[in-house]
Amino acid sequence: MSVMSVTFARGAGQLSGISGKKPPSASDLATAVRRLRGVAVQTPLLPAAALTTELGRPVFVKAETLQRTGSFKFRGAFNRIAAMSEDERRQGVVAFSSGNHAQGVAAAAQIFGCKAAIVMPSDAPIAKIAGTKSFGAEVVLYDRERESREEISAALASERGAVLIPSFDDSYVIAGQGTLGLEVAASVAGLGLALGAVVTPLGGGGLASGIALALEAASPDAKLYGAEPEHFDDAARSFAAGRIVSNARKSGSSQDALLTPELSPLTFGILAPRIAGMSAVPDIAAEEAVRYAARNLKLVVEPGGAAALAAVLAGAIPSGEGALVIILSGANA
Amino acid sequence: MSVMSVTFARGAGQLSGISGKKPPSASDLATAVRRLRGVAVQTPLLPAAALTTELGRPVFVKAETLQRTGSFKFRGAFNRIAAMSEDERRQGVVAFSSGNHAQGVAAAAQIFGCKAAIVMPSDAPIAKIAGTKSFGAEVVLYDRERESREEISAALASERGAVLIPSFDDSYVIAGQGTLGLEVAASVAGLGLALGAVVTPLGGGGLASGIALALEAASPDAKLYGAEPEHFDDAARSFAAGRIVSNARKSGSSQDALLTPELSPLTFGILAPRIAGMSAVPDIAAEEAVRYAARNLKLVVEPGGAAALAAVLAGAIPSGEGALVIILSGANA
Repeated sequence: MSVMSVTFARGAGQLSGISGKKPPSASDLATAVRRLRGVAVQTPLLPAAALTTELGRPVFVKAETLQRTGSFKFRGAFNRIAAMSEDERRQGVVAFSSGNHAQGVAAAAQIFGCKAAIVMPSDAPIAKIAGTKSFGAEVVLYDRERESREEISAALASERGAVLIPSFDDSYVIAGQGTLGLEVAASVAGLGLALGAVVTPLGGGGLASGIALALEAASPDAKLYGAEPEHFDDAARSFAAGRIVSNARKSGSSQDALLTPELSPLTFGILAPRIAGMSAVPDIAAEEAVRYAARNLKLVVEPGGAAALAAVLAGAIPSGEGALVIILSGANA
Repeated sequence: MSVMSVTFARGAGQLSGISGKKPPSASDLATAVRRLRGVAVQTPLLPAAALTTELGRPVFVKAETLQRTGSFKFRGAFNRIAAMSEDERRQGVVAFSSGNHAQGVAAAAQIFGCKAAIVMPSDAPIAKIAGTKSFGAEVVLYDRERESREEISAALASERGAVLIPSFDDSYVIAGQGTLGLEVAASVAGLGLALGAVVTPLGGGGLASGIALALEAASPDAKLYGAEPEHFDDAARSFAAGRIVSNARKSGSSQDALLTPELSPLTFGILAPRIAGMSAVPDIAAEEAVRYAARNLKLVVEPGGAAALAAVLAGAIPSGEGALVIILSGANA
């Protein structure tokens, strides 16, 4: 299985000024940590014994699959709703999502006793739709190829006076996802190891942005790599071009959690100067990584959540010093 | 699915004098904790959200499936080999096992650079045989219905001057497994909760004995329940009879990790006065628990490792105050 990869010179192109939205600060991340304490699971960092032997460096997986709702999305959603006023919460929240963000928002809203309407593509996995409903949310389906989820969601939000929670294009959401990066840095340091690199699945770039900012604050020598689906490698092409480019196709990958049309100015601005490389992962490589995780790591992972593992298994991450941490980001297949 | 259960008055029958072997002391458990630090995984205690809602008390799973070699057996095996002299280690170790103890001993021996010969039944799952060989051990197969693994192992050990590591009938092994119980007690206390009950799969009783002693030391008000396969409920019948009774059948359950002919005087002596109840779990209930773990907890578990979860899902554990912790003990299906 071949995984195409590209690396970038770090710090190339300081593009942080191009977004109208501000990236979260180190203090915003620390606030998110406080809000999530005792609510989110501090997911385990688990040794990957076979990969450690194979790569000759300590390799770990961050099993974020064990987070509430089965993915990291709960962190950002909870942090966003926690930052809302009581009045805002009474009006409810709206989100659009292929599934994991849907469940994250639904579960976070339920904790705050706040109504949630989630706009989901009609071809989303049944498990994700059922999961979203199980947290008491209203699910509004749309056709991924013909309708605009942005328009449907904006209309819903305006009709109800509800707050729209973006799946990645939001400073609070990114700060929430960043808590995962801080946990990785703290866990590795706690083992007395240097953190060499983190590899993460990358769709809209919310998780990757949060991790990038967390590493900058807590482990500045660590490199960050992203993995996205083959044929949906808009992020790699955007970083290479120095501007946001889109995917031609909008659907048709088993790595459905990573199918976003393009990065936002906010996530592009955060990631472009900070990402060390990107890999484009074929679906069969992601699916083989899912089986590897079940067999060797005893973890259930969905294909999109296994993209970073697939990149490592394919030897697509440059060798280096220090611990290598692979983010397993979701498990709702 | 019906799971037959029986409860026992605690402290009924102080039988600790019937064994020639001494149970490990609290200080033996503390020594095991020190030996395993940085070697064994401190496996995560994960919230079980749906069960918490359903049972109206905090429910957690101890995901020991994420231990090195995919089961708790590594703990006891490592503790046993760590207690051997350099001279003993040079002669190697021998063990007999249906699979998880085999891999635990093989992996622990490999860390000490010590030769291991493992006697395994010819009908053991291929994954467990392959797993054992992958740690560099020699595998000797026998026929579970016709041959005595005890005789084969004893002959091998004597021929080679090797130390035989029992899968449960050993004070060091029980102390090693007890570290899991200490972790459970510490994790629950760390969350500011009282530990009400622990439910564990039970075969030969090594893990259950270790947990029983750990709870006595660290959380004396917590109750311990065991779950064993239907038709192989020798432990429940032994506790009820006040003496060790055996299973009529020796094989024929998907919960293969729990198929031991009978308790040993050591584990019976530790458990009889300390166990609060036992459940007999049909294979279909264990297999349904395996699916529940994959779907809801995102964890791979083998049927025997899911026996305690099956007992809880069937409503077989008496209601009570405080946190309920379910041990998921193995994942090598």
